[in-house]
Amino acid sequence: MKLLLKIAYNGAGFSGWQVQKKSDARTVQGVLTEAARTAFSADCAITGCSRTDSGVHAREFYCTVEGEGLSCPPDRVPHALNTYLPDDISVYSAIPVSDDFHPRYMAKGKEYVYLIDTREIRDPFLGGRMLHYPVKIKDEDIKRLNDACGYFVGEHDFTAFMAKGSKITDAVRRIEYCRAEYKDGILSFTVAANGFLYNQVRITVGTLLSVLRNKISPEDIKDIITSKDRGRAGITVPPDGLYLNKVFY
Amino acid sequence: MKLLLKIAYNGAGFSGWQVQKKSDARTVQGVLTEAARTAFSADCAITGCSRTDSGVHAREFYCTVEGEGLSCPPDRVPHALNTYLPDDISVYSAIPVSDDFHPRYMAKGKEYVYLIDTREIRDPFLGGRMLHYPVKIKDEDIKRLNDACGYFVGEHDFTAFMAKGSKITDAVRRIEYCRAEYKDGILSFTVAANGFLYNQVRITVGTLLSVLRNKISPEDIKDIITSKDRGRAGITVPPDGLYLNKVFY
Repeated sequence: MKLLLKIAYNGAGFSGWQVQKKSDARTVQGVLTEAARTAFSADCAITGCSRTDSGVHAREFYCTVEGEGLSCPPDRVPHALNTYLPDDISVYSAIPVSDDFHPRYMAKGKEYVYLIDTREIRDPFLGGRMLHYPVKIKDEDIKRLNDACGYFVGEHDFTAFMAKGSKITDAVRRIEYCRAEYKDGILSFTVAANGFLYNQVRITVGTLLSVLRNKISPEDIKDIITSKDRGRAGITVPPDGLYLNKVFY
Repeated sequence: MKLLLKIAYNGAGFSGWQVQKKSDARTVQGVLTEAARTAFSADCAITGCSRTDSGVHAREFYCTVEGEGLSCPPDRVPHALNTYLPDDISVYSAIPVSDDFHPRYMAKGKEYVYLIDTREIRDPFLGGRMLHYPVKIKDEDIKRLNDACGYFVGEHDFTAFMAKGSKITDAVRRIEYCRAEYKDGILSFTVAANGFLYNQVRITVGTLLSVLRNKISPEDIKDIITSKDRGRAGITVPPDGLYLNKVFY
């Protein structure tokens, strides 16, 4: 039996999604595999929709769990797993899928959110969950950020926004929407695409912070994309503020 | 020089406020003392407004910092300390106070909040910060809880709501207000008093959960208070959901 699980996790305590060979790092896949073994008294294969990096969060993440000994009725699977899972990961639902369903290849797109606490003094309850970046934000800043966001939308070669050393050869992706919002001191960026390159969201946000600080203009985004030069884009912001927010099937 | 600091901390990573002799447990007082030593290159005495237990949070907490070598201008103290503090504790302000100011004895009252996540599946981003207590809440439940809350208000001997073994002899306290609220699956209790007995808020909330589950009626609160019998009140709920929310001077 193969089930598609909808889960969420706080990435602060995980060394990313994927089990690392030759390492006993705590990973989401590893913790889920262990919980499934205990809950179902059977070995299960867990396959994720994405390989989130160390410290990256997921408000919505899908993975399949598959095993010959997996005989639990699907509607009981969330509770069975949650009983054995630590409190930084939860299973929300489980539905049966066909044997050839692959949560990564079947995903039509994903939405990420990046959260930045811009208040002068960091909130002690947000540690590991937002980037603390103290800065005064004006309405015109948000307008300029959204102007910049607009240049990312559409189908482009995003080589300039891909981590160096990445082995991907086709860096063309289609960004569906990209926007900046600001409320109560929290600046957020939301971006959705049919797929993302390695570190793309974090480099995109780093570049938008260059716009915020007037180091570059919104129009410069167009040139940076065209240049395909990683050196012209901004820094790779830390994983703390990054959330996989939605997965589209 | 003696300064009154306004701070906040996420208690999940602390073994309470107070430095424990013969133990290297991580405490808020200990971490602050260490940061002050580094920031001011001087030994400082730190005195708190309360001795919060292990795992209890503070959205607002006051402590004094005092030392002969403390020569930093008060308005620079928050930044100086925050630079050396971990991300689960923050200093918001510092004001000079007289030598005889004591943050605990000078406090006229305190407000605590207790947060309960009543949704069936726990939120992985709330670990350590709320009690996860899955239950369906109806409008009439909140009305009944607030009826029960009303019986706590006023001046009473709260011996029934004090941890056993406590050495306090005068258990009379005046509760100014006590209320239950419910929004988006989160049940919260807010209670303010001129002072609290050991574990009083946690036993009060445990007793209110007995009301929620219809094990006792709101009117029973009156009898339980009068009985002065700890055995008749409810359980001591875990520290995770407890926040020192305001301190009144």
